[in-house]
Amino acid sequence: MTDPVDLTARLIRCPSVTPAEGGALVLLQELLTEAGFTCYRVDRNGTSNLYARWGDKGHPRTFGFNGHTDVVPVGDEAAWTADPFGAEIRDGVMYGRGATDMKSGVAAFAAAAVDFVRDTPPDGAIVLAITGDEEGDATDGTIALLDWMDAEAEAMTVCLVGEPTCPSQMGEMMKIGRRGSLSAWFTVTGRQGHSAYPHRALNPMPAMARLMDRLASHTLDEGTDHFDASTLAVVTIDTGNPATNVIPAQTRATVNIRFNDLHSGASLSDWLREEAAAVDTAFGTTTEIRIKVSGESFLTPPGALSDIIGRAVEAETGVVPELSTSGGTSDARFVKTHCPVVEFGLVGKTMHQVDECVPVEQIDQLKAIYTRILRDWFAD
Amino acid sequence: MTDPVDLTARLIRCPSVTPAEGGALVLLQELLTEAGFTCYRVDRNGTSNLYARWGDKGHPRTFGFNGHTDVVPVGDEAAWTADPFGAEIRDGVMYGRGATDMKSGVAAFAAAAVDFVRDTPPDGAIVLAITGDEEGDATDGTIALLDWMDAEAEAMTVCLVGEPTCPSQMGEMMKIGRRGSLSAWFTVTGRQGHSAYPHRALNPMPAMARLMDRLASHTLDEGTDHFDASTLAVVTIDTGNPATNVIPAQTRATVNIRFNDLHSGASLSDWLREEAAAVDTAFGTTTEIRIKVSGESFLTPPGALSDIIGRAVEAETGVVPELSTSGGTSDARFVKTHCPVVEFGLVGKTMHQVDECVPVEQIDQLKAIYTRILRDWFAD
Ligand SMILES: [Zn+2]
Ligand SMILES: [Zn+2]
Repeated sequence: MTDPVDLTARLIRCPSVTPAEGGALVLLQELLTEAGFTCYRVDRNGTSNLYARWGDKGHPRTFGFNGHTDVVPVGDEAAWTADPFGAEIRDGVMYGRGATDMKSGVAAFAAAAVDFVRDTPPDGAIVLAITGDEEGDATDGTIALLDWMDAEAEAMTVCLVGEPTCPSQMGEMMKIGRRGSLSAWFTVTGRQGHSAYPHRALNPMPAMARLMDRLASHTLDEGTDHFDASTLAVVTIDTGNPATNVIPAQTRATVNIRFNDLHSGASLSDWLREEAAAVDTAFGTTTEIRIKVSGESFLTPPGALSDIIGRAVEAETGVVPELSTSGGTSDARFVKTHCPVVEFGLVGKTMHQVDECVPVEQIDQLKAIYTRILRDWFAD
Repeated sequence: MTDPVDLTARLIRCPSVTPAEGGALVLLQELLTEAGFTCYRVDRNGTSNLYARWGDKGHPRTFGFNGHTDVVPVGDEAAWTADPFGAEIRDGVMYGRGATDMKSGVAAFAAAAVDFVRDTPPDGAIVLAITGDEEGDATDGTIALLDWMDAEAEAMTVCLVGEPTCPSQMGEMMKIGRRGSLSAWFTVTGRQGHSAYPHRALNPMPAMARLMDRLASHTLDEGTDHFDASTLAVVTIDTGNPATNVIPAQTRATVNIRFNDLHSGASLSDWLREEAAAVDTAFGTTTEIRIKVSGESFLTPPGALSDIIGRAVEAETGVVPELSTSGGTSDARFVKTHCPVVEFGLVGKTMHQVDECVPVEQIDQLKAIYTRILRDWFAD
């Protein structure tokens, strides 16, 4: 039996703060190679990634796991009550950066996969696609693995991402999709002038206020079957004019939109441009917009995969997981172009925080859930 | 005859950038003392001011002049085509910092007063209240002179401020009042959060956008008999949040209001607080406001003084001056609590700019106008 708690501890002791590999992927590669997995290091632009396959390449029944070994920085180290890279266990709780996000998840699926292929070798294949860059730009992480898989004719039939998905109680939530995310940077330009003679200037501030008010008070939608309502947040407006007697020439703002399957990056971009144009027409200003779509919304509709996962979670925890599409982005947004993808993992409450920690029994529970999923999926 | 052009040149050569006296007041004090004026240096907190009186203290027919000898900094000295403290005359135009704002004005009224009391000593008194701090904080300039005058039972019956008042053509405008000026600093506070979960945060940005839109689109008034419409300028909104995935807790904005005699600093403060409270109620935010009233609006209603000035200007220039209340603040806002005050001076186009300059013939013209005003006022 491969102990996922011990494996988590060994991974936490690897200082793999993005983009450092820190020994984490090397450790996993040794374990997986010994268990009969064929391993490839898929490194790109200084980012380390590991691809491991048990069974035949391109087998039509290939179960994939995806996860990351990189972690966010420690933050205020003095505020930690345990060594962030020590994996200390206190009262049944293991402390360390990556304890929930997501060295425990990687340890649980690696341990499950290793024991599963040894004890009950399936008629199929198991793939572990593990990246060293999920917390950073993520441009050379899971994307690099998927690019490499395409080039090498490697494939997964379905994929389970082991990110923490439960808000507070183990087992309560899996994620079958995510809302999309778009950021837009607005620059409204008018004409500088003196506050005492506003008619000689063209103040961009009222236009900006109107535009942001219009955007923020617009209801994008009321939500859909599997998605929460889309949301728009004005995250900053900045002008940097210290002089009360000066009307500035320019002001800037940024909005972030999280959107469901009723929208796309393109449809929202069109809407933002129309709103800005309407305000420009009303005020005589000129608004430039730069837009970045970090991810389109996606959904793996409820079906065989989510059923298997839901039953496994309920059997091991007694909790029926909700099928959710809430939360921020994850690498599932890349995997979804390759195959159906669902996310299930631990309670994420302490992720990215000081004293990030995980109850060790939940690591064992997670391995048991992943094992049951493998058994049921290959039995299906 | 006292040559106002030569006097302007000698004043320009005094490097009296606020708050430096630079020799300018000393020069004037010598000239005025020699002409029979009683002079007092009214210095306060490092600011130099000069009070000069010809005739009896507290005479009921006392004509006052007010002006300043300090100047704003040179700015981009390399961009000047003449020495900013050289008073070079080229093609009949004198160049230098203070050429229009307002060493020429001070020179013109000093020369007019000196020659007038020598040639036609009036039955009354003439006061020159000249400050070395109008361009700075102005807290120890004309205010100090007026405080000192109160304490010493010195008085002016009327006062003419010699600031440049003409937008582009000599003689076209005098100022019989000014709008008030008020600045307000808003801080809207909500609750920080993650852009993906806006319902868990309380974003202050939509409230700020709504508040600024409401303020900017409100018509304060349509103007009054002697005043332009009051105006409100949103001069800056600043948040300083670089993270698109973070909803900030707080955002700040500043507005500047120039208001006519339909409003007061107090009435506008009440209005701003009501608007903020309405937005807070709608959004659940908390808005703090800091308000500074730089000056209330004031008016010296058209009458004997403005009539005399208008006729003098027309006689010397052929132009009938408009009676205006436009523009920014000047020390007239302090003088108006002491006595009726009107402003008349040169064309202000180049004030505070590189290559500030004045046609020398306009300095002579200004002296002639001031002389005619003295003659007509004392003859009245
Ligand atoms: Zn993660
Ligand atoms: Zn001035």
